[in-house]
Amino acid sequence: MTAGGDREPEELVVVGIDPGSIATGYGVVARRRGGAMRLLECGVIRPTRKAELAVRILEIFEGVTEILERFRPDTVAVESVFQGKNARSALILGHARGAILVAGARLKIEVAEYTPVAIKKAVVGHGSATKDQVGLLVQEQLRLKEPPRPNDAADGVACALCHLVLGVDGRLPGALPHRFARSPS
Amino acid sequence: MTAGGDREPEELVVVGIDPGSIATGYGVVARRRGGAMRLLECGVIRPTRKAELAVRILEIFEGVTEILERFRPDTVAVESVFQGKNARSALILGHARGAILVAGARLKIEVAEYTPVAIKKAVVGHGSATKDQVGLLVQEQLRLKEPPRPNDAADGVACALCHLVLGVDGRLPGALPHRFARSPS
Repeated sequence: MTAGGDREPEELVVVGIDPGSIATGYGVVARRRGGAMRLLECGVIRPTRKAELAVRILEIFEGVTEILERFRPDTVAVESVFQGKNARSALILGHARGAILVAGARLKIEVAEYTPVAIKKAVVGHGSATKDQVGLLVQEQLRLKEPPRPNDAADGVACALCHLVLGVDGRLPGALPHRFARSPS
Repeated sequence: MTAGGDREPEELVVVGIDPGSIATGYGVVARRRGGAMRLLECGVIRPTRKAELAVRILEIFEGVTEILERFRPDTVAVESVFQGKNARSALILGHARGAILVAGARLKIEVAEYTPVAIKKAVVGHGSATKDQVGLLVQEQLRLKEPPRPNDAADGVACALCHLVLGVDGRLPGALPHRFARSPS
């Protein structure tokens, strides 16, 4: 899903990523000096299902690298692990995150990390928001016709928004949109 | 520690890796047609301690890539996670492993994985061997003057030996050394 054009001067561009070994969602969001934000692109990287682990992790690495090289963002914001995951799923998720961190650091792009709770708080206003709520608030903030689909893509966009709300204070002129801090209606 | 020279023709070369976010041990082992093995190199990749996670993971990726490009092994054999790790340490270890799998797959080198128990069984003869036992048996098998130091390097070498014992049967003429299957004396 592409919802914008090329990068404009003086924009801050953030790539948000929701890592997963089956589906890694991403969203590219730009924020202008005035504070207005727009979605440049979002989507999902889906590694070949039956490929061996190393190949699937490589496909995530290559997919993320392609996005980062195309948009050259100021920051790549990566969602950190769900709390309470068991050791096995944490390990697999760690593989995907390792590939993403390498992709960002290799291109010398700042890597920021946010917990799922921090992302939901920043975007919806509380940490226990549902996936649908996240999608709806992302839609509203970016004035989209509908929430990004699938949910993984919306989660990637939410991670980028979270960084723009929490992570860039003071770096770019223009107040942060207050509506980010509210509870869902 | 370098214990050998360049690669000879008709040798099978395996890089074994024991992943860790603080120290990633590796060992490069060559096996000739007759079955004789020799250690080409072993050592440890130690990411900058106080660097942020993405940079440390990148340093592991770059260190492994350098080794793989230099030796162009037939296989990179990676130790899989310890059983019973908690979710947090499994996640961090997963990051390191993800970087290593990407490094191998990106260079189109076969990636094999072995559990710690399989490695100990293959090298020492039973799955509950101590680190010192692993080091001693590695020393004996490769006719070294002393066990590889530190233990992380010995674990990397053991992982390469494990692949040469378990993983290459039938691919290279020459019986496997029976002593690998014995119990430690």
